[in-house]
Amino acid sequence: MTTSPSLIVFHGTFIHLPRLPAEPATPSTPPKHVLEIRRGALWVRTVDGRIEGFEWGVEGEEELGALMGRMGWREEGRQGDNDDDDNDTEGVRVRIVRGRKGRNGFFFPGFVDTHIHAPQYPNSGIFGSSTLLDWLKTYTFPLESSFSSSPSSPTTPPPIAHNVYNRVVRRTLAHGTTCAAYFATIHVPATNLLADICHTRGQRALIGRVCMDNPSTCPDHYIDSSPSSSLAATRATIAHITTLDPSHTLLKPIITPRFAPSCTPPLLSSLGALAAETSPPTHIQTHISENTSEVSLVARLFPSHDSYTHVYDSAGLLTRRTVLAHAIHLSASEREIIASRGAGVAHCPVSNSAIGSGLCEVRELLDSGISVGLGTDVSGGYSSSLMEVVRQTCLVSRLVAYRAHEEGGGKGSVEGGADRRKISVEEALWLATRGGAKVLDMEGEIGGFEKGMWWDAMYVELTGEEDEGEQEEGGRLGNVEVFGWESREEWIAKWVWCGDDRNVKAVWVGGRIVHGRVERDL
Amino acid sequence: MTTSPSLIVFHGTFIHLPRLPAEPATPSTPPKHVLEIRRGALWVRTVDGRIEGFEWGVEGEEELGALMGRMGWREEGRQGDNDDDDNDTEGVRVRIVRGRKGRNGFFFPGFVDTHIHAPQYPNSGIFGSSTLLDWLKTYTFPLESSFSSSPSSPTTPPPIAHNVYNRVVRRTLAHGTTCAAYFATIHVPATNLLADICHTRGQRALIGRVCMDNPSTCPDHYIDSSPSSSLAATRATIAHITTLDPSHTLLKPIITPRFAPSCTPPLLSSLGALAAETSPPTHIQTHISENTSEVSLVARLFPSHDSYTHVYDSAGLLTRRTVLAHAIHLSASEREIIASRGAGVAHCPVSNSAIGSGLCEVRELLDSGISVGLGTDVSGGYSSSLMEVVRQTCLVSRLVAYRAHEEGGGKGSVEGGADRRKISVEEALWLATRGGAKVLDMEGEIGGFEKGMWWDAMYVELTGEEDEGEQEEGGRLGNVEVFGWESREEWIAKWVWCGDDRNVKAVWVGGRIVHGRVERDL
Repeated sequence: MTTSPSLIVFHGTFIHLPRLPAEPATPSTPPKHVLEIRRGALWVRTVDGRIEGFEWGVEGEEELGALMGRMGWREEGRQGDNDDDDNDTEGVRVRIVRGRKGRNGFFFPGFVDTHIHAPQYPNSGIFGSSTLLDWLKTYTFPLESSFSSSPSSPTTPPPIAHNVYNRVVRRTLAHGTTCAAYFATIHVPATNLLADICHTRGQRALIGRVCMDNPSTCPDHYIDSSPSSSLAATRATIAHITTLDPSHTLLKPIITPRFAPSCTPPLLSSLGALAAETSPPTHIQTHISENTSEVSLVARLFPSHDSYTHVYDSAGLLTRRTVLAHAIHLSASEREIIASRGAGVAHCPVSNSAIGSGLCEVRELLDSGISVGLGTDVSGGYSSSLMEVVRQTCLVSRLVAYRAHEEGGGKGSVEGGADRRKISVEEALWLATRGGAKVLDMEGEIGGFEKGMWWDAMYVELTGEEDEGEQEEGGRLGNVEVFGWESREEWIAKWVWCGDDRNVKAVWVGGRIVHGRVERDL
Repeated sequence: MTTSPSLIVFHGTFIHLPRLPAEPATPSTPPKHVLEIRRGALWVRTVDGRIEGFEWGVEGEEELGALMGRMGWREEGRQGDNDDDDNDTEGVRVRIVRGRKGRNGFFFPGFVDTHIHAPQYPNSGIFGSSTLLDWLKTYTFPLESSFSSSPSSPTTPPPIAHNVYNRVVRRTLAHGTTCAAYFATIHVPATNLLADICHTRGQRALIGRVCMDNPSTCPDHYIDSSPSSSLAATRATIAHITTLDPSHTLLKPIITPRFAPSCTPPLLSSLGALAAETSPPTHIQTHISENTSEVSLVARLFPSHDSYTHVYDSAGLLTRRTVLAHAIHLSASEREIIASRGAGVAHCPVSNSAIGSGLCEVRELLDSGISVGLGTDVSGGYSSSLMEVVRQTCLVSRLVAYRAHEEGGGKGSVEGGADRRKISVEEALWLATRGGAKVLDMEGEIGGFEKGMWWDAMYVELTGEEDEGEQEEGGRLGNVEVFGWESREEWIAKWVWCGDDRNVKAVWVGGRIVHGRVERDL
């Protein structure tokens, strides 16, 4: 009988971002001491997928052998290892995953997508010249409503849900997204299917059935019939997710009022109460202040409230487990409320630029003490790659800095000059990993390489001079070109700006491989 | 003896953009009748690589056979074709290139990159948080200056030039760029090598030796020693290009003052005079009004001139064969001068956002009667893909529209409301093909599928349902996902927003295949 090894030992280069840089980048100096780059070995317990330890400086095979001797490990499949006779052989059986030589490869924490609409995936790239409110009506509601079950088989998810949800989970894993906070649709069977697919494919996920019951703003054919039916349907998906994963290790429910304009006040309040039934509260996600017309609409629909933020706050929807998507047009007092509740923001610059919602000032959010992660916002965002979001986070921050320069230092609360508004490559990668973990209240669990964290990670390879020949045929190695004189920081910058899923060779969630592979000992 | 066929017949779907749409997109309605989508056959003369004719409606093999019969063609390699006995067999020998079935494939005009710095390619993605003037000093001048020949072998280009220039030409071809206007460096041997490599690899190109002689702004180690030496070196590269390609069919020289701050007034004037020696004038390229600090610097350096534009105009550098890169911060009177001279603008939104130069209002340029093409501006721009520029053209225009909304309709001369500032996917593709052709004074030669134009084209394939299995392994088919219910226009939108070089299966310049291949009859 074959038994699994007790540990998986990863050997190679490890890069992560231990902290957000205290000092911002200056125009010509990149921020320092932000990327932690180590060569060595890191080992993960197969029983729970958590990092048990690491030792840096373990350069080559000889040092690795010495470490194994010290630790009392024996490599599976090597001489002295015998699956059938496990108890008779001394030492702990380990599997070794070696980063390939000469490929400029490294292990990196998996990306955390704090905002993605799974059912909208087929519309990626289809948005014309629309802005939020007409985009919803023209492109989004018709697609989402097609995820309803047929009347003759009301508990069976429709074929489109199988097709789309399998594709989006597979694709985001291929981009290195190891954890995602998904908006589904209002349909319980299809939402539960999304949970099943994440469970099967092994993606860490928060799964939210969308709640929307306001007949003045929702389409007739795509609406919860009442607050109580919306609540009951939400409870049904929470129950399904809990049956699938009782400890909520891989899958968590997330309460999902679409956004204030879609929901009646009674629904908002009952969802806030539902979240508070558990301690810590159940996660919550919604949209806020994405578009100026939307902000005006909220003011009209909720005339007794001081602000958009106050609508959510008064319903008990702002907790340290709340994810607010977009948050572009907040006032200072709104930022203060959000910070005091510990709620986080999903920054979605790809979507914000694509449907012309505006330029979100991330530095202002961070300076206000708000946690910020990144979100693809498929399909307001056209890309399911969080790396595209990393890029656009940097780009948009440079346009924000430009605007602030034009305005003589810029409006708002950012101190230290316009250039402080720029988000560096390293900061954006921090937001994509640690930042997202914090927004999802999973700090200390994912987002880096620390003892006790889950091994949610990817193995990245950049091309090198030696790949010249292969590069010629079809570019399967991607667009990163390494010339050999780059620093490690420049390596990472090239990955960020020129990389894509071709560079993501393998992905693990909780120690389980969920995409690709690393060839051993090439 | 094997003889080449007289014609290459392409059979499949052809998409191009005959004209810039007269009517702008409204928020929810994409512009209509802009993409011309035809199924049929198009044939190219091998002798000069030009399109001889086409016939639409030639759907399948049967219709193709009928066309061949009517035209008196016989397919090479088929029964009845005998290479050794060509004169004895009736009919014109043709090669047939068939778009593959079931792959959502189409032929599309090659992209025209109107602004790219070939030697900066290794710095793609390396720019930190810099802006133009410190970026030049920190990243650009050190790299460009390394293209000098060694003193012991002053006419031999250095190894770095071979390495970088081969890579950039190969890579841009792989992205579908069939024509590029290159800035090289000040070095004659390396610049001539770039011409050689374009000639060998078959990319249509304008090759410019960079001219810069102002000791107050240029580094000591990277400067032309005098206006006359700069002029002589420029003449030397023009002579080399003319020897290589006497008719200037594939390769053209382009006179390249770096930008006003780098050049003394005598150099600018002598370069204007050099361009005027031929009729039509030799092409000219330079930068204008990219960054507000640069604009101020020009005002200080050229105090007797009314404007940045006037500096170039007074030196005779604005002609209908002039390419001005960036042009973000022009005044209305500058736009008027540029339009009246027939000079064109290379819009470089990737670079403009990356190094925080600002938001260029393309609609304002077009409304002013200025020709606009697109440029990657490697390595201010991090990507050598013109498709990335197409995307950012759309994104930036949406942010421009957003800004105009905020300002109550927007400043400047754009009429018809803020939304008119949005550039649609189709318009951006027009700019990437026809627009670029116009800016390079090659309208009617490249950029579309008309009789007499050169066959500068790519064959694009999108993934489809049938590729499900392959998609699983390594994503070699790219990120475009076709679900089957999309319209043709939505197909193209998905290609633009989610596509990359993996979708570009083959590229031709002047009828010669220069990248990839199309399998026949799959």
